[in-house]
Amino acid sequence: MSVTCPQGFSAAGVHAGLKAQDKLDLAVVVNNGPSQVGTCVFTSNRAKANPILWSQKAIESGVIAAIVLNSGGANCFTGQFGYDTTKLTAEESAHILGTIPSHIQVCSTGLIGEGGTAFREAIVNALPVAFSQASADGGDRAAQAIMTTDTVAKTAEYQGDGWSIGAMAKGAGMLAPGLATMLVVITTDADISQPVAQHALKVATSVSFDRLDADGCMSTNDQVTLMVSGASGVRVESDTFVNALTEVCIELALKLLSDAEGASHDIAINVTGARSVEDALSVGRSVARNNLFKAAIFGNDPNWGRVLAAIGTTDAQFDPYNVDVALNGVRVCSQGEPDRPRDEVDLTEREVVLDIDLKSGNSRATIWTNDLTYDYVHENSAYSS
Amino acid sequence: MSVTCPQGFSAAGVHAGLKAQDKLDLAVVVNNGPSQVGTCVFTSNRAKANPILWSQKAIESGVIAAIVLNSGGANCFTGQFGYDTTKLTAEESAHILGTIPSHIQVCSTGLIGEGGTAFREAIVNALPVAFSQASADGGDRAAQAIMTTDTVAKTAEYQGDGWSIGAMAKGAGMLAPGLATMLVVITTDADISQPVAQHALKVATSVSFDRLDADGCMSTNDQVTLMVSGASGVRVESDTFVNALTEVCIELALKLLSDAEGASHDIAINVTGARSVEDALSVGRSVARNNLFKAAIFGNDPNWGRVLAAIGTTDAQFDPYNVDVALNGVRVCSQGEPDRPRDEVDLTEREVVLDIDLKSGNSRATIWTNDLTYDYVHENSAYSS
Repeated sequence: MSVTCPQGFSAAGVHAGLKAQDKLDLAVVVNNGPSQVGTCVFTSNRAKANPILWSQKAIESGVIAAIVLNSGGANCFTGQFGYDTTKLTAEESAHILGTIPSHIQVCSTGLIGEGGTAFREAIVNALPVAFSQASADGGDRAAQAIMTTDTVAKTAEYQGDGWSIGAMAKGAGMLAPGLATMLVVITTDADISQPVAQHALKVATSVSFDRLDADGCMSTNDQVTLMVSGASGVRVESDTFVNALTEVCIELALKLLSDAEGASHDIAINVTGARSVEDALSVGRSVARNNLFKAAIFGNDPNWGRVLAAIGTTDAQFDPYNVDVALNGVRVCSQGEPDRPRDEVDLTEREVVLDIDLKSGNSRATIWTNDLTYDYVHENSAYSS
Repeated sequence: MSVTCPQGFSAAGVHAGLKAQDKLDLAVVVNNGPSQVGTCVFTSNRAKANPILWSQKAIESGVIAAIVLNSGGANCFTGQFGYDTTKLTAEESAHILGTIPSHIQVCSTGLIGEGGTAFREAIVNALPVAFSQASADGGDRAAQAIMTTDTVAKTAEYQGDGWSIGAMAKGAGMLAPGLATMLVVITTDADISQPVAQHALKVATSVSFDRLDADGCMSTNDQVTLMVSGASGVRVESDTFVNALTEVCIELALKLLSDAEGASHDIAINVTGARSVEDALSVGRSVARNNLFKAAIFGNDPNWGRVLAAIGTTDAQFDPYNVDVALNGVRVCSQGEPDRPRDEVDLTEREVVLDIDLKSGNSRATIWTNDLTYDYVHENSAYSS
């Protein structure tokens, strides 16, 4: 069901011709109201793709009537022609739906530098078909149409008391998070205001997608979009909605993690005893970005020295000689010295839990990441060929 | 000849028993004077190995009578026992040489967490033999004794007008620079003062080792040491010495780069048109740390989109839509748009030159890095097993 789980939404996934064979490559999600509240979170990368440049301006209206997403080309660094393609996509969509272009969000994913004439024609020609096919059953096909190197379509649903949330996500190259595009569309039929929606999306993404292997290096095209139809007629309190949305975002984040390109381990890095959440995040991210640690986990090697070496590069408050490190529950390092023997650690399962106790406070945070594998190198070296 | 090229130095490399078979694993370099000026640059990592803790304190004297280096164990995160081992190494060496412990530098490299009783005994027992074998011919064996995953011993020499510089270096896992230990010992018979030596080492390392794939993430054990004997009797001007030392350091840095674990390409990232050197370094480092770019180069794929995505994560001054990018001389991106076709770029050679013009000023800097390969993952996943 994905994005069409809540009432008031229709969606479709079609083959526009951007991808080979008959693969779905264009998705639309339409908000049939009564509300058309919308809010987005965009990449922090200063190099922004054309769809981001468009969507950031368009969302100032606080309204999303529909969103158009394509795979098979990022339309990034494609110049004025590329921007005009995004604008034309919004204009054509608005014309079909009888609304204004600034109520249309546009997302693209695929190779940077792709977005020429064939790209434009394929999208624009497919729009009438896509919108005419949009239905309350179309969520799953829409989720398939935004896949790139994803091996499975990622969706999530939340059932509230008479209201619900639906979502779809795309993204698979999570080692340097964001540097492979992550696109997320979330829908809800809860009756909430624009400020509540905006606040909720900010909070939910900050503890989910932002903590996925995060190093602040988002891609050129990342966008998380929330569309509110209000069609359930149920007014939902802000806190209730924030909690539900956070649950959905974490579920999707973990699905992205599990489908990371070439990964053989999913690693949860729990940092406790931190002076502040910022310190905990900084420590977690330093480990999540450490190629030597990630390669060691791929080799089922509990090399905790690399964990301490990574932490040592941060400004977080801690004494290197008072840190505890545990891998899958085995405390291999206690107060900066070897504790249990390495061979007690079993790293053969996909799930790995790394616990780091800084003993410098009461704050904590979890960062999720993957290992560094042959397949990661392979998939990312062959991406554009 | 390595460190025994200049007059006034003797050196040895012996098998202490830290490594398997009869491999050399302990090196000593002795300064026979008349001067015993010394200066060091240490890792910036807050998690410092025991030899670093010792050497940082000892060098406050400004004197180095001898340096002892071992491979086969980093003596890092080995607690008080490990620190006492380093101290004992210095005390025993000082006793043999008839000097004081604070005039002895100690360096270790190998696996973190290794440094127990057997480690201590092997080193202490081997010291008398090592010092008795030290000779003016011993430089090459010393260079071999500090190798870990290095495939070749790295040395460099510089001939001045009646004076010279000799050097040896160890380090091979340069992808996250420093996160595999880099040890460098440089000797000279030039007659220079301690302040001149200290200034020269700071300048020379800042434009050589610090720009090797640098992300500020040095290892727990990194140390660059300069020993001055003055035995040539030739007074050398500060500028002359700085230039010569810089030449030696860059030569060694490029040798480290060429021997990086598992790398198949050496990449020079030239950033020009920067507002400041800091901006140029920040941009160069963002690219050097980008796994997606590095994997693409491994696959001979001129994926310049990943270069722009990396730059976009920095705070450097530039307009993403006014940047030029060239790979091996082919301008693939001009003003943020595709220029020459990708297939004009030949990446089959080991040497790769990436030129980035930010068009925001007149400053420039070069960062050196490697590609991300299957072999890198293999070597770093198997390191401790």
